[in-house]
Amino acid sequence: MDKLFVIKIGGNVIDHPGALDAFLKDFAAIEAPRILVHGGGKIATRLGDQLGIESKYVQGRRITDDAAIDLVTMVYGGLVNKKIVAALQAKGCNAIGLTGADGNCIPADKRPVGAIDYGWVGDVHPSRVHTPVLRALLDAGLVPVLAPLTHDGAGHILNTNADTIASAVAVALAASHAVRLIYCFEKRGVLEDLDREDSVISLIDRVGYARLLADGKLADGIIPKIDNAFAAIDAGVKEVLIGDARDLRVNVTDRVSGTLIVP
Amino acid sequence: MDKLFVIKIGGNVIDHPGALDAFLKDFAAIEAPRILVHGGGKIATRLGDQLGIESKYVQGRRITDDAAIDLVTMVYGGLVNKKIVAALQAKGCNAIGLTGADGNCIPADKRPVGAIDYGWVGDVHPSRVHTPVLRALLDAGLVPVLAPLTHDGAGHILNTNADTIASAVAVALAASHAVRLIYCFEKRGVLEDLDREDSVISLIDRVGYARLLADGKLADGIIPKIDNAFAAIDAGVKEVLIGDARDLRVNVTDRVSGTLIVP
Repeated sequence: MDKLFVIKIGGNVIDHPGALDAFLKDFAAIEAPRILVHGGGKIATRLGDQLGIESKYVQGRRITDDAAIDLVTMVYGGLVNKKIVAALQAKGCNAIGLTGADGNCIPADKRPVGAIDYGWVGDVHPSRVHTPVLRALLDAGLVPVLAPLTHDGAGHILNTNADTIASAVAVALAASHAVRLIYCFEKRGVLEDLDREDSVISLIDRVGYARLLADGKLADGIIPKIDNAFAAIDAGVKEVLIGDARDLRVNVTDRVSGTLIVP
Repeated sequence: MDKLFVIKIGGNVIDHPGALDAFLKDFAAIEAPRILVHGGGKIATRLGDQLGIESKYVQGRRITDDAAIDLVTMVYGGLVNKKIVAALQAKGCNAIGLTGADGNCIPADKRPVGAIDYGWVGDVHPSRVHTPVLRALLDAGLVPVLAPLTHDGAGHILNTNADTIASAVAVALAASHAVRLIYCFEKRGVLEDLDREDSVISLIDRVGYARLLADGKLADGIIPKIDNAFAAIDAGVKEVLIGDARDLRVNVTDRVSGTLIVP
């Protein structure tokens, strides 16, 4: 099976032009097939403030109303996505920017209205990711760059979590590719000692994870990330890596600096 | 040679949701391979006003400064493009939204600074349109939807006239396809009598055009459009049609309601 990297970067990188440029340089230099999934960053909130579009939250969860979905469609699907694509092109990487509506690559279900109406938010499932179009793009030598937007198939763009898109795409393509799913976050990897940045655990498998949990060594915040990683692995992804965006160059090799999670 | 329609719609359609929806329904129903090129509409100006981004003009020509290129990248490449794509998907048309940066399909030259500095404006040339990527998308059954944006290959998005993009793409693909380039504008076609909407001239060839010019029958505004049409035909496009967006359904057949311009 061909190797494929599915790499997610978040707002912390997008909001810093220097960090983003360094990351995109490393991303462009990867020789294997790859897909980039990007988050939104704070530009949407800032622009929304200028436009008088209030960021609404209910119980800590963001609500995407009509004005908010137009805002994120502009910012994530337009400004952020196209700036990344143009920058990658300048670095010799043949990027193609997409939302889940483009080529119908990621149809989603509008989140059902329960106690909370989240508005125009889409839930995705790996089984519904339209892999033929992604494979056709990869086969044509293109590098898909996915914005955190999907669609409902009824004409509406939906706001969707970038981590979830990355995981769904990785799982969906695991049938045809040996996928390494890479989450870039603000630490170098999973730390054995939160106070020591150099205490990165290089490899975690099921047995090791059980031991780490039993020892109570892991920070609370990292546990759901690792659980999600194992969920992706259970669904066929070969390996999941959690690391720093600055370490991308080594994290696409066999000698990783982040934490590799394997079965 | 396979038939291909390259269809351009302007702001007058984009600014009216009902007209746009009717147009997209007809566009989705076309069975032949096709490419849509859309203009910007007034949303960018309106949003720019809200954000305090002034629309600058010098000698009647729009200037695209840093704030303006971010604005049109958001609005044309994000909001307008993705709304069209999502609407087409809902109508069963497998649209994929692109700027000229995506897949490097339309590299452009930043307009040289002369008496006027137009800012981030791109001039395109058919010979530089990257047809392999457009053909790969068409071969995969996808329908490219092009925003009026290109890039300079050095990391910058450029503002580019939608008519020019449509013409450049039509000419570039004329080597592999029998292209009908369709410009949707505000009249049903080229009129023999400006006061009579039913005086559409169905067919204009070189000989007929010379006669119309000699008779002084054509309105001044239409002459550059017809000249551009013949320029596309001289460069290999099979036929150019000038007509109303509402007549798209018949204008993709042999019994057109607009004006067909042929060699």
